[in-house]
Amino acid sequence: VTHAALVPVMLAADARSVRIIDQRRLPAEFVERELHMVDDVIDAIQTLAVRGAPAIGIAGAAAMAIAAQDYTMVDARTALVNLRLIGTRVAAARPTAVNLRWAVDRVLMTAARVTSDGAAVAAAIAADAQAIRDEDLAMSAAIGTHALALLPDPAVVMTHCNAGGLATAGLGTALAPVYAAHAAGRGISVVADETRPLLQGARLTAWELHRAGVPVTVITDAMGAAYMATHAVDAVFVGADRIAANGDTANKIGTYALALAARAHGVPFYVLAPWSTIDADTPSGEHIVIEHRGADEVTHVAGTRTVPDGVAVWNPAFDVTPAALITAIITDRGVHRSPFAVGPA
Amino acid sequence: VTHAALVPVMLAADARSVRIIDQRRLPAEFVERELHMVDDVIDAIQTLAVRGAPAIGIAGAAAMAIAAQDYTMVDARTALVNLRLIGTRVAAARPTAVNLRWAVDRVLMTAARVTSDGAAVAAAIAADAQAIRDEDLAMSAAIGTHALALLPDPAVVMTHCNAGGLATAGLGTALAPVYAAHAAGRGISVVADETRPLLQGARLTAWELHRAGVPVTVITDAMGAAYMATHAVDAVFVGADRIAANGDTANKIGTYALALAARAHGVPFYVLAPWSTIDADTPSGEHIVIEHRGADEVTHVAGTRTVPDGVAVWNPAFDVTPAALITAIITDRGVHRSPFAVGPA
Repeated sequence: VTHAALVPVMLAADARSVRIIDQRRLPAEFVERELHMVDDVIDAIQTLAVRGAPAIGIAGAAAMAIAAQDYTMVDARTALVNLRLIGTRVAAARPTAVNLRWAVDRVLMTAARVTSDGAAVAAAIAADAQAIRDEDLAMSAAIGTHALALLPDPAVVMTHCNAGGLATAGLGTALAPVYAAHAAGRGISVVADETRPLLQGARLTAWELHRAGVPVTVITDAMGAAYMATHAVDAVFVGADRIAANGDTANKIGTYALALAARAHGVPFYVLAPWSTIDADTPSGEHIVIEHRGADEVTHVAGTRTVPDGVAVWNPAFDVTPAALITAIITDRGVHRSPFAVGPA
Repeated sequence: VTHAALVPVMLAADARSVRIIDQRRLPAEFVERELHMVDDVIDAIQTLAVRGAPAIGIAGAAAMAIAAQDYTMVDARTALVNLRLIGTRVAAARPTAVNLRWAVDRVLMTAARVTSDGAAVAAAIAADAQAIRDEDLAMSAAIGTHALALLPDPAVVMTHCNAGGLATAGLGTALAPVYAAHAAGRGISVVADETRPLLQGARLTAWELHRAGVPVTVITDAMGAAYMATHAVDAVFVGADRIAANGDTANKIGTYALALAARAHGVPFYVLAPWSTIDADTPSGEHIVIEHRGADEVTHVAGTRTVPDGVAVWNPAFDVTPAALITAIITDRGVHRSPFAVGPA
């Protein structure tokens, strides 16, 4: 049982454009867009047309590859100076996911090793952006393999937000073992939180699992604890936007509440993410910068105002789950259990 | 600082109709409707035009008063036989809230004491329906007084769903002490969960608090735990639809998750409800029948489909919070602390 992989972001062979799936339009419409300008990619990241920590890393590297095409006629040093300025803007598109800054820094370091000319700089960045995508594909597969070993057969997995094929080059982080179980003919079903305010669980996770033939049940975010109290759940699988050196994990708002519910019900709570999500420079969760987004995401749903005009809202995009609530962190390098202390990379 | 009370449901003086606020239209529009038929009241209860456990008790009694007008020309026995059949339908409109069955049973017991004729039965039911409303007003005030004593000044209160003026004849159950604090000139602000799927927190609690000048911040349901982790919260106040004899409490889905978050953060978790919400015949939470509602409440928001077609959903209207997570139950009779064991009424 397989299905065509989703490609949420793909750099063109000539490195002059990037094709994305506009995830704001799902599930109503499957729309792909071709972006030619760095600012269009930044906008796509900021508006969550492209989202998911690994995917926005790939998008960030692709944006740098597009930018480098403007400096093929200058010397390598001039190209690099300009690209570093652009990289600062790209990396700032969203502040919490470490993958974005990591990918931008990586292609700039690759570029810095080129001393010939701007054309060679551009070629090096394009090749590195492609490598980041290829590594991400392999990463998804490795996470799937490591996490699959933790699941019974059949298994019921609960997840939050979308850390699936729409969030990575491959079959996702949190959903990678789900797809692996399904492909292996195991019994697997998923309970997906709808994930307000932007409903990535209802719109994206349910869409891609249903498309792949994996049974999925959508619940509202408030139902996770009640579901655990009345049904058997074998594991919670979530992604991560940044993991501090001590294991504290920033992920989509609501992850922390779900971790508390899992703890109360003895359900193992796993964070699945590329090794690059671990930020050794951030000692613990309270040092993670949390992005706050516009009030209209909370005050309006599908264009309809649901909160009365003039009422305040609070809208952090992420929360921090303390390491103590995390059973294990599963990366492409394996299964990491508490204590999670990570040294410098 | 006062404000005009909201009257979510009001029996006409001639007992031939009931006026309701159609809460499905808030906050966009304030619409009142005049209902003349029992089936219209049942429909209003089932569709949540009238909602909130105390208010649907008042609506149920009012529906019986309207029904009794059809039997003023018959003998008392015939009237009662027919009204008991109608009462079964009214009480079944929503299965979880104990107040609905309690109110219907109460007016039928009142009617059973009348032996003269159907007109006297109708008069007795109308008077008792009015008494239920008057007692509910007093109940709100008493709950407000008892709970106010538990709050510091200033205080931040978190709440879920709507247990305010739109849910009772008075100023609510969970919100009664909030209004009492505001009227007393104390510092009081509220953090309101939006309460998916039907958004009673965003649409109703925020609307009525903002209307009354009480500062209110709306969060999505997934944010409660994260809010507690990053802000001082003095208490969680929620209502109840049914309280078992051991204190286990059925309330709007998501209440249990919020209770887990409150416990994790040492925030007192209070259930505020009329004494009549305590169902001595239900020994514990697992015996409470939980109403499950239609999938479209989860699959659609404001008329827009957010869950892909063909995907399953789970949509219980309520969950059960174990007594062990409840700091105190506050009724019109006072503050009840664990153990909550209640004998027969």
